[in-house]
Amino acid sequence: MSTGRYLAITGGVGGAKLALGLSKILPPEQLAFAVNTGDDFRHLGLLISPDIDTLMYTLSGDNNTETGWGRKGESWQFMDALAQLGGETWFQLGDKDLALHVERTRRLAAGESLTRCTSALAASLGIAHPIWPMSDDSVSTQVLTAGGPLAFQHYFVRDKCVPVVTGFAFQGSGNARINLEILHWLDQPDLAGVILCPSNPFVSIDPLLSLPGMRERLARCEAPVIAVSPIVAGAAIKGPAAKMMHELSLPVSATAVLRHYADFLDGFIVDERDSELQAELDSSGVAIKNAQTVMDSLEDRVALARVCVEFCASLPF
Amino acid sequence: MSTGRYLAITGGVGGAKLALGLSKILPPEQLAFAVNTGDDFRHLGLLISPDIDTLMYTLSGDNNTETGWGRKGESWQFMDALAQLGGETWFQLGDKDLALHVERTRRLAAGESLTRCTSALAASLGIAHPIWPMSDDSVSTQVLTAGGPLAFQHYFVRDKCVPVVTGFAFQGSGNARINLEILHWLDQPDLAGVILCPSNPFVSIDPLLSLPGMRERLARCEAPVIAVSPIVAGAAIKGPAAKMMHELSLPVSATAVLRHYADFLDGFIVDERDSELQAELDSSGVAIKNAQTVMDSLEDRVALARVCVEFCASLPF
Repeated sequence: MSTGRYLAITGGVGGAKLALGLSKILPPEQLAFAVNTGDDFRHLGLLISPDIDTLMYTLSGDNNTETGWGRKGESWQFMDALAQLGGETWFQLGDKDLALHVERTRRLAAGESLTRCTSALAASLGIAHPIWPMSDDSVSTQVLTAGGPLAFQHYFVRDKCVPVVTGFAFQGSGNARINLEILHWLDQPDLAGVILCPSNPFVSIDPLLSLPGMRERLARCEAPVIAVSPIVAGAAIKGPAAKMMHELSLPVSATAVLRHYADFLDGFIVDERDSELQAELDSSGVAIKNAQTVMDSLEDRVALARVCVEFCASLPF
Repeated sequence: MSTGRYLAITGGVGGAKLALGLSKILPPEQLAFAVNTGDDFRHLGLLISPDIDTLMYTLSGDNNTETGWGRKGESWQFMDALAQLGGETWFQLGDKDLALHVERTRRLAAGESLTRCTSALAASLGIAHPIWPMSDDSVSTQVLTAGGPLAFQHYFVRDKCVPVVTGFAFQGSGNARINLEILHWLDQPDLAGVILCPSNPFVSIDPLLSLPGMRERLARCEAPVIAVSPIVAGAAIKGPAAKMMHELSLPVSATAVLRHYADFLDGFIVDERDSELQAELDSSGVAIKNAQTVMDSLEDRVALARVCVEFCASLPF
């Protein structure tokens, strides 16, 4: 296995699966996570960072595998009592999960940065790998729809991805700085690869790519930048990526994802089931690797993580 | 039963017992509650109003009779998760109870007054009697000790009333306005009585009495002002009142409580067990009534409430 260091860029549940696999084969000195914060929002006065939380719960083994989101062994007494009080209940906050949001809100109100706060919370959960929010500045993903812009969680959770998407905007992105921890990691001479996890390109990866200088920094990266396609056989494994592509009049295919990242990508991992795209993919000039990308078991996650690391090592740099 | 209206002034658990009794014999048009907010504090970013919450849970039947505080059917998943995250755990917040604090904090941050917010929350819990915080301005009870001043909840909960008390201060009181709802209620021509519930004189009733003009308003009240002694047979039924009196070199007796309120009090209800104080009490010039003041059952609460109302009616006004 490589001795260099890797940066994994990740968003929600799909990305966290590969992140977990990578964490099993690379020690904390060799693997750090840059996480989407475009989903972050204030709800009931609490600061909620859904993608950071998903990654933390996944890495600590606290994720709820029944619901596919939130924390395992969860209970809902708070939500029931809040409903009785006439509070907003469209966003489900479990009793245990709530502790993370209350403690984060308290720390940030006390002047701590999201980066520092995330490190402390992750350490409390027993996570050794660095987890860095993409920025300490606020970036808010807006889903543009025929009915007007929607904050991401309103689109995703409250409106259940029903509105037809016409585009995206990342409020605050123009003035947001890339997390210096991420830039510092990318600058290290032993950088061995950057891995875009199979997250939604538009709402999980693009918020990070929208930060000033980010795409350019990846384009001139001195190690391979690879991505794993979140689109398999014309569908998304989870979430609204395929629906969004359809509504944006894009082909729902791994090829469209590749084109989305073409300006900085060196390698692209597509599912074995997408071999009919091979000619099209090869014409892109990006190195293509076929693999089993659907991660049902922990073994699947670890196996795909190995493919990613080996693929990086195989690319000419 | 009287057709006039009553104001009950109340603090924590002891006061809430009589408040419940009064609510069973007087309809919402005839009974309102003025509640101590000197205990209110911000904890984990949440605005907590312990005495308002105790009264609301008691009146709605949601109070936890096992613990003597908090909400019934409570669970502690939030606290367990918060402890894991290294958060502050000295103040216990149950999963259900938390909903009240989160919703209150949200409403106040949105610009609602504590009075309006309390009315909305009480209505959600099915409470019809008006519950008014003593003021919408912040008043913070400080317990003065040899080791320095302590915010009330730090003294009461975190330090378990161990520090020796030298006095009290009510921060913000000098500039706080009495809740206009309370003044308006007191101004009504059919006012039939003001009842100080058997709450701690120093930390449950004095914060309200410290508001500019409050003692004077009670002194010139056109209806009887009565109190129920929280000290029975030289001890407090619950809480640190007796310990405080001892540390302040006051006699631990109903007589000392009477003297504390002497400037505005018309009638004083003491427990039957304190009949040996009769001569001393009579010399005060305040009308004295003996009654069973220890309220173990709901019947006890209702019986003492009846005594209060009848006592008011019996006083010459």
